[in-house]
Amino acid sequence: MLLNKERLQAAMSQHALAAIVATAPENVLYSSGFWCLPQWIRRGPQAFVVLAAGEGEFASVVITGTSTLDLVADQQVAGRVRRYGSFTVDEHPSTHLDMVSSRQAQLQRLPDDGNAVEALILELGTAGHAKGRLGIDEGGLMPGDMERLERGLPDVTWVKAASILRSVRAVKTKEEISRLRTIARITERSVQAALSIAHEGATEIDLARAFHAQTVQEDGFPVLGCIGFGERSALMNVQPSDRPLRHGDIIRFDVGGHYRNYRADIARIASFGEPTREMALKYRALRRGVQRGIEYMRPGVRASDVFQVVLETVRKEGIPHYQRNHVGHGIGLDGYDLPLLSPASSDLLEEGMVLCIETPYYELGCVGLQVEDMLLIRPDGVEMLTDICEDMVVLH
Amino acid sequence: MLLNKERLQAAMSQHALAAIVATAPENVLYSSGFWCLPQWIRRGPQAFVVLAAGEGEFASVVITGTSTLDLVADQQVAGRVRRYGSFTVDEHPSTHLDMVSSRQAQLQRLPDDGNAVEALILELGTAGHAKGRLGIDEGGLMPGDMERLERGLPDVTWVKAASILRSVRAVKTKEEISRLRTIARITERSVQAALSIAHEGATEIDLARAFHAQTVQEDGFPVLGCIGFGERSALMNVQPSDRPLRHGDIIRFDVGGHYRNYRADIARIASFGEPTREMALKYRALRRGVQRGIEYMRPGVRASDVFQVVLETVRKEGIPHYQRNHVGHGIGLDGYDLPLLSPASSDLLEEGMVLCIETPYYELGCVGLQVEDMLLIRPDGVEMLTDICEDMVVLH
Repeated sequence: MLLNKERLQAAMSQHALAAIVATAPENVLYSSGFWCLPQWIRRGPQAFVVLAAGEGEFASVVITGTSTLDLVADQQVAGRVRRYGSFTVDEHPSTHLDMVSSRQAQLQRLPDDGNAVEALILELGTAGHAKGRLGIDEGGLMPGDMERLERGLPDVTWVKAASILRSVRAVKTKEEISRLRTIARITERSVQAALSIAHEGATEIDLARAFHAQTVQEDGFPVLGCIGFGERSALMNVQPSDRPLRHGDIIRFDVGGHYRNYRADIARIASFGEPTREMALKYRALRRGVQRGIEYMRPGVRASDVFQVVLETVRKEGIPHYQRNHVGHGIGLDGYDLPLLSPASSDLLEEGMVLCIETPYYELGCVGLQVEDMLLIRPDGVEMLTDICEDMVVLH
Repeated sequence: MLLNKERLQAAMSQHALAAIVATAPENVLYSSGFWCLPQWIRRGPQAFVVLAAGEGEFASVVITGTSTLDLVADQQVAGRVRRYGSFTVDEHPSTHLDMVSSRQAQLQRLPDDGNAVEALILELGTAGHAKGRLGIDEGGLMPGDMERLERGLPDVTWVKAASILRSVRAVKTKEEISRLRTIARITERSVQAALSIAHEGATEIDLARAFHAQTVQEDGFPVLGCIGFGERSALMNVQPSDRPLRHGDIIRFDVGGHYRNYRADIARIASFGEPTREMALKYRALRRGVQRGIEYMRPGVRASDVFQVVLETVRKEGIPHYQRNHVGHGIGLDGYDLPLLSPASSDLLEEGMVLCIETPYYELGCVGLQVEDMLLIRPDGVEMLTDICEDMVVLH
């Protein structure tokens, strides 16, 4: 179970929503357990989940294309299903059907609701939601969909719900934490795999290849692979090039794959040869900022206060002019979940939040340094999901 | 150059557009060469490209967040740039700047336009496009953006342009064909890598891991990895499980990574042990359908006629009840580019189109068989980008 039911219940109650409709891929997966392939790899295909508030439990309905019913059948998807569109699968009466196929056969016998929005209107209408306040996640709607919903259910008061679901997702359930823990470790081992092939003349692309290969070997999926050498380490989104590694280069990793759709985002710094004293001092200041932030974090603390603590520590410890818009963010199905550790944030830290805390520093044409680790908020502080680097790795 | 300039010129002329605005990640990359990391890995971050019709050449303007200016500087991005938002990068006057950093420094000195939509309104207004017909790719707009554009430029007639750009993208340029050729070959070798580890007891996940590992080794990026054994080969979107390989199983691959954002989508069938006579005959019918379609394809041919030819061939050659909604589709930056080989399509094949031609067949609880190959439309027929399989692979 990915969904934090209590938190969703509370959010729906707070916004007085009788039901909420998930439309973006991550919210569909989050709310129902349904991973609908086509909506993850392109824009256009739609799957929706309707969650209606009930007595303790949610009544859940998945709406998806007929060509994806095999995925519904093969996954642990909660609730009822509606399908739309045509797709041909042969059934021979003589074939003994295994459990997945049998469930697929049943799903295919459901009526065809036409298209995703029609199916949604039909579902809400027949489920007694033709009027009242409904939350609609606008993230997976296509242009014109909202107007069609308004025409189809004119007595509904629609409340945009992408930000509501994002807020619900901020506090992770046990299964989510388990996946995040896994991808954090996979990503760390992938950095090690990349560093293990670092030698004079190796290119950024060589290290990226070794990085992603390790992620795949551990059944993770590549997502983010910013790896830069020397002056290119200062490019904040550096994409691996054929720049060869040279003695004295800093290597900056800002990387992370996903494991079962849960993302990692960590940064590591290595020096190819001894770092200059200046680099070592700056790195130390950035690391001290993260460490001080970690010591400070616990349930009830303001995200904006964490920002101030981290910023001031980095400034005091060696980079007096240090500036940032944020020093970290939640992570989960999205690379930027809530909360954001920024001066303007009004979020409080809560038990069960998983965050990246980071202190990137970019000196154009010269060097990029960055510490970024993942952690879980526990009742009395934090549990690290990554091993915070005491010192930058020095390769000889 | 990814952009097919002549085709865009013609489309803008046909729709009487003075300018066209790309907003979806694939259209931004396609029209400018700018790969804007954050918009590829999550929903929310925006980059736009404005292309104004001119004398022979387009005047091109990229609008992007300040935190992505390093990517603009490091890539071969055509045209002028507008930036929005704040992001801190240190510059030390004493540092000698390499070319990329120097370009980034220049870009950072551009004024901050506030946000993406404000920057777009500003650009269109100052470039003389405050009235007239403008194409707007709705694919990368966020809810409310269209209304803000309408308020900001009330005298503009907006024409939705996602489908126009999709149509332009259907005929590939030399660079696009080169990338598609590369990923087609990578994907074929990745299937071979997966089959090379097939043995009694190996799982679908084992083969998927070997498949993606080969893609990554060749600097491709995993996207699609449907690999199913036996009864699971009939699941159309089968996601690899721990189902072990058993003697007599059919193995179905429907797979493809991307190389520099250009996608592959191919299917391969292997039999673990000799296939039954029925499987072999059905496979042969599916293969004959694809082969007949390939022989039939050339510039000027109707996509709907290809559909009929393929369908009838499969029916005649051994699956009399064969039904499909389509038997192939274009491929490029999107997994489903135009044209669609469907009965309702009004598209004609044109030189330079790259397509997947496919005959999937799913027999619930029993077996899935599928032939899918990639090809390029040439003046006198087709050039295969994959090796069409004469027979299914038989593993012993």
